[in-house]
Amino acid sequence: MYDYKYLHDFTKNVFTKMGCSTEDSEVIAEVFMAAELRGHASHGMIRIKDYYELWKAGRINVNPNVRIVYESPSTAVVDGDNAVGMIAARKSMEIAIEKAKTAGTGWVATRNSNHFGIAGYYSMMALKHEMIGICLTNANPLVAPTFSVSRMMGTNPIAVAMPAGKHPPLVADFATTPIARGKLAVAEKKGEKVPFGFVQDRYGNPSDDPAILKSGGSMLTLGGDRLHGSHKGYCLSALVDIFSAVFSGANFGPFVPPSVAYLPVLDRKVGEGTGHFFGAMMIDAFQPKEEFKTKMDEWIETFRSAQPSEGQERVLIPGDPERESEERILKEGISLVPAIEKDLLAIAREMGIEFNSTY
Amino acid sequence: MYDYKYLHDFTKNVFTKMGCSTEDSEVIAEVFMAAELRGHASHGMIRIKDYYELWKAGRINVNPNVRIVYESPSTAVVDGDNAVGMIAARKSMEIAIEKAKTAGTGWVATRNSNHFGIAGYYSMMALKHEMIGICLTNANPLVAPTFSVSRMMGTNPIAVAMPAGKHPPLVADFATTPIARGKLAVAEKKGEKVPFGFVQDRYGNPSDDPAILKSGGSMLTLGGDRLHGSHKGYCLSALVDIFSAVFSGANFGPFVPPSVAYLPVLDRKVGEGTGHFFGAMMIDAFQPKEEFKTKMDEWIETFRSAQPSEGQERVLIPGDPERESEERILKEGISLVPAIEKDLLAIAREMGIEFNSTY
Repeated sequence: MYDYKYLHDFTKNVFTKMGCSTEDSEVIAEVFMAAELRGHASHGMIRIKDYYELWKAGRINVNPNVRIVYESPSTAVVDGDNAVGMIAARKSMEIAIEKAKTAGTGWVATRNSNHFGIAGYYSMMALKHEMIGICLTNANPLVAPTFSVSRMMGTNPIAVAMPAGKHPPLVADFATTPIARGKLAVAEKKGEKVPFGFVQDRYGNPSDDPAILKSGGSMLTLGGDRLHGSHKGYCLSALVDIFSAVFSGANFGPFVPPSVAYLPVLDRKVGEGTGHFFGAMMIDAFQPKEEFKTKMDEWIETFRSAQPSEGQERVLIPGDPERESEERILKEGISLVPAIEKDLLAIAREMGIEFNSTY
Repeated sequence: MYDYKYLHDFTKNVFTKMGCSTEDSEVIAEVFMAAELRGHASHGMIRIKDYYELWKAGRINVNPNVRIVYESPSTAVVDGDNAVGMIAARKSMEIAIEKAKTAGTGWVATRNSNHFGIAGYYSMMALKHEMIGICLTNANPLVAPTFSVSRMMGTNPIAVAMPAGKHPPLVADFATTPIARGKLAVAEKKGEKVPFGFVQDRYGNPSDDPAILKSGGSMLTLGGDRLHGSHKGYCLSALVDIFSAVFSGANFGPFVPPSVAYLPVLDRKVGEGTGHFFGAMMIDAFQPKEEFKTKMDEWIETFRSAQPSEGQERVLIPGDPERESEERILKEGISLVPAIEKDLLAIAREMGIEFNSTY
């Protein structure tokens, strides 16, 4: 078990050593830790190696000039200057929040960025300002539209954070696919099958093979098949892609650049880097702040008191599992599997920094 | 078969006779026809009777004063004054479009409204102004959150319309459930079962009985069950409810008033009427208009050329089925089942207006 603070500082050291500023390294470490604490380990320490390898390959800019290239009173387009995704994303969300302070709402589309960790982190930045926060991003193409076998979209997540009064904020943070990519890898390692409805083979037949992506298969959109509404999942994923990439001038759909160095840079570009989309909304652009918060409390209490199905203990509010995970992990510490510890140790040695692995 | 124009004029007459202004009746008829033409007959002529009965019961206001009650440069809250939903919704979307012209984007939350027909109609209003249009609404509670058997949410749709260049616009318009409520009714009438994943019984067990809502059952969210991501459908539906009702001060979740007169007015109110949410975004708040449209064309061409699954002819772009339906029905006419014709004839007789039914 690792103490949260220890992994935070280690991560910060890695990025500082890469050449990121102290301030940027702090932000990056914060986002990595948010993933670990909120129970999305697939976006946590396991990915340090990917960023490190991208940096070694010269595919990421550690001294970026993240800047507004186009704007209106309530909007902006930001060029991320090929920054580590967290840096482009955090700056973009800060701009959205600033815009909202004067225009009521702020909307920022970001191009020329990279993988930014968990979307929920940026939506939650709005909470400190008592605003509603929104964050979308496109991602590596692994997902096929309804009726297709082509990998055209990423798991393209949607995150929305909304302040409440006496209750914790409501935070929805979810991919537009039934499962995350990482869960396929876990099932494959364990030699297990996955339920039908997650993936299909290269011809579009249902499959329960978690390794099917290696033989031309693809992931399915939320809904699974047409009969169960996969076309709605396709719509959602397509909208996230367009808001993130067409609005900003980033690469869309199948042209989103790989977020790992072992995959080559794509031949064709239709824009700059990966794309994100951010929104911030002032509560009192809609109604007095206290009224809104009281109403949110009422909403949360109403849904929390819904009757559980037989065999279930309770009905959850979006954000409950992540908040409970955070409380638990802050107390218990972060557990890393030996393969990740080994990777971190190797990186630490190469960079000449310390890592006290239990490995 | 009915000519589109004939049913449009009949609908307009019905609402004029109820006391709606000529202008309002025209808008209402347009929205009804949009539903029929776009292939969403469940929101078309079949619902005239519901509106008529609500009016007879004095539960809807035909001379409303739809007005802004709160605003910022990019936002407004609108009070629909218990109008026919189409009137409150159209006015609200017009306000969003006006706001966008100066602030770059416009966002309107509407309370004290009623059922407004198809969400796609309002999102598409933005297209004439070369803007992106967004529309959300909450609706009668029929849907249970993940792990629950309580009917807490409506089929809460999301509609987004985006202009392209040489291609038709992309229009996504979908409920946040696997199927629409109307499809259950059709299966029930035919004596057919429905696939698992649409509904559950009163204990939360999977069910294939389309009539299960009559015995305490409920509809499921997009994803169907927890394993296949129903919690993501729940998040979506919850967000639509909060944007529509908490932002505006309308009734949320289980308190949304019935859109039919045969169900009694609910005992408890937590706000005013039904709630909607509208957005309009100027393209050139993000980038030069022509660049965006060219990029949308490129996106559409890329996705249209995705490889179809075996046995499929083509991959669709959101909005394709509705546009093709519209082209076909404009040519062939609108077909109504005898039960609907009978209802319309009865209404026509009661109101003293003409209806040449083929019944």
